[in-house]
Amino acid sequence: MSDVKVYWHEGDITREERWKALKATGCTLWFTGLSGSGKSTIASALEQTLVNRGVFSYRLDGDNVRFGLNAGPKILQETHAYDEARAKRFGLGFSAEDRAENIRRIGEVAKLFADSGCVAMTSFISPYRKDRDLCRKLHATAKPAPIGFFEVFVDTPLELCESRDPKGLYKKARADLAAGKNPGFTGLDDPYEAPASPELVLKTADLSVEQSVAKVMDFLRAKGILKG
Amino acid sequence: MSDVKVYWHEGDITREERWKALKATGCTLWFTGLSGSGKSTIASALEQTLVNRGVFSYRLDGDNVRFGLNAGPKILQETHAYDEARAKRFGLGFSAEDRAENIRRIGEVAKLFADSGCVAMTSFISPYRKDRDLCRKLHATAKPAPIGFFEVFVDTPLELCESRDPKGLYKKARADLAAGKNPGFTGLDDPYEAPASPELVLKTADLSVEQSVAKVMDFLRAKGILKG
Repeated sequence: MSDVKVYWHEGDITREERWKALKATGCTLWFTGLSGSGKSTIASALEQTLVNRGVFSYRLDGDNVRFGLNAGPKILQETHAYDEARAKRFGLGFSAEDRAENIRRIGEVAKLFADSGCVAMTSFISPYRKDRDLCRKLHATAKPAPIGFFEVFVDTPLELCESRDPKGLYKKARADLAAGKNPGFTGLDDPYEAPASPELVLKTADLSVEQSVAKVMDFLRAKGILKG
Repeated sequence: MSDVKVYWHEGDITREERWKALKATGCTLWFTGLSGSGKSTIASALEQTLVNRGVFSYRLDGDNVRFGLNAGPKILQETHAYDEARAKRFGLGFSAEDRAENIRRIGEVAKLFADSGCVAMTSFISPYRKDRDLCRKLHATAKPAPIGFFEVFVDTPLELCESRDPKGLYKKARADLAAGKNPGFTGLDDPYEAPASPELVLKTADLSVEQSVAKVMDFLRAKGILKG
């Protein structure tokens, strides 16, 4: 038989026991801001900085969420062989309600990551205060104790975001608007509701990526999430 | 300004870089078996054993999934103030299709945890081969390389599960059946499709919880997921 020693007690490990054993403190950093504001670049650089120090951290973004967990009907049909009716039933689109459900599920998953001891990061425009507040509440009401949820407002003027336009999204949306269409593009014909009291504000017009990351790292230290 | 050193490169950290820096190898252990087979007890004891050795591991189960990410209409209404139509649109129930979608989402989230470097565990009856195979495929087709997915069949005879009946679920289902109702209970009036080629089989009629955990630990060592 195996020589593995098994240490366990009846009932599940508590969050406190887990974090202590892993020498980790989980939390969620919720990045929000306009398209092109720099959310993903900063979150990615932060993730690398944390991981390179041995800190478990993980970023949820459009790439790993919208093609997986929150896939739309087309992907569900093509990748998972859902038939049309099922794909329609379960796929998430881009209506206001579907966007809200997209954010809710991301909040739920971020909470699980944070519970596990990970520094979870989300980088989504998440333009509506109500949706972000729901995610905050999910963390605040976690049992048996709240889990840290920190809103990081990447506060970049629309003009600067539009001048960067790394994926050509503004250009396309402007063309749609000029043609009389309503692209529903945040900052143009759809509102961005800035956070009322974010834990951190990063004004990227004045901060380099490195400076923004350092600011978040200092914040995590001040909160006791990073030691040393 | 902060003295934090920021190490990053353009583009995202790769899974290889991440796992190397964290000295971790993520994977998913997919526990499957009848109600009362011992899935959750074994997975919980394994989780404790791993975490107590400093190995990031996390368990998805009914408690943290069905009340959060995959909540039903009632919870969405009560906890998140979804109105009735929205709750119906997004809530997951217990129809065959909804159960399949429940398992798909769990598979997607387990994959994210595994990608992060965590030993993800799922403990759900997950009675249908097709649903489990989809989760296997999600891991096998992960980019840029497959992520380990290991099916752990907790193979406990129905009679033994029913004699344990820790939550009185069999008793209730038997009463329903006697009253002419169809509870759709796995192993009674709904099939359990045993895995065709699971990576591990735990026959709990002959193994203690400690022995089962040790067997999984030996497996994780053999796969190089646990070192030393």
